Amino acid sequence: MSQNYLNRYLPLFHNKRKYLYWYLTGIVDGEGSFSVSFKRHPNLKSGWLVDPVFQVYQHKKHREVLELLKEVFQTGSIYQKSDTHPVMVYGIHSLKTIKEKIIPFFTKYRLIIKQKDFLIFKEIVERMDRKEHLTKEGLKKIHQLALKMNQQGKGRKYLAIE
Amino acid sequence: MSQNYLNRYLPLFHNKRKYLYWYLTGIVDGEGSFSVSFKRHPNLKSGWLVDPVFQVYQHKKHREVLELLKEVFQTGSIYQKSDTHPVMVYGIHSLKTIKEKIIPFFTKYRLIIKQKDFLIFKEIVERMDRKEHLTKEGLKKIHQLALKMNQQGKGRKYLAIE
Repeated sequence: MSQNYLNRYLPLFHNKRKYLYWYLTGIVDGEGSFSVSFKRHPNLKSGWLVDPVFQVYQHKKHREVLELLKEVFQTGSIYQKSDTHPVMVYGIHSLKTIKEKIIPFFTKYRLIIKQKDFLIFKEIVERMDRKEHLTKEGLKKIHQLALKMNQQGKGRKYLAIE
Repeated sequence: MSQNYLNRYLPLFHNKRKYLYWYLTGIVDGEGSFSVSFKRHPNLKSGWLVDPVFQVYQHKKHREVLELLKEVFQTGSIYQKSDTHPVMVYGIHSLKTIKEKIIPFFTKYRLIIKQKDFLIFKEIVERMDRKEHLTKEGLKKIHQLALKMNQQGKGRKYLAIE
């Protein structure tokens, strides 16, 4: 069913891909999230695993929107949020893919609602790309940046990092 | 603050208004609603007031998105959802404005998530424009259409219409 929908919807944007990209920017501005979580990880020297994630949520009735994102980015996966929620998630968890596909996309197609979060997310991804999260000072700075993001207190649980 | 944001954001779309329209289509697909409510109204012959409304919701921190919609449609109003919620609403309640601005816009800029609701909403607005809601048969048909919309049971309360 979803694939049928895409087959009908995508031709509307033939030679007009930028319209589709702006539509998806609107979707992400409403339903997307840029987040960074910190997980205890005794095997790492810093003691913490830093995990940047790009996600877009949608009720399973409309997973075709998530498939459209997957089609456009040619990467990422679609999964159910939890056993108990009828919500699907399109997620990209790879730092490399986030750096190569997500950061350039939303640098070009500018968000409004999520713009502040995106800019902090971008800075964290750039710092991680320079391996700064592997040092104590770098990790602390990244954690301070993450606290400025509007991610429902995800970072606040980990004050022990500071 | 909001106005400053618009002053910075709108020039990005100079000569590229269609990009802005597709962005807003994405926003509405995520955060918008097309709904029709039925209110008891003893002064009307049919006994019911039929009320189609186009609304877009946003946390008050980002009311600039709602102001962008108001700027583009050059109509509508922005108000707080309720005393207890930090949510703002951009709403158009006039049948004439909905018919002249909202219906043509989303006929051209096609939604995905809300497309089914939009098409039913469009049919109801067209029927109301032909005054069909003023007859018992017409009202019943409009109510049946409204029941097919995904509006969290708003219509279901009024089964007495049938």
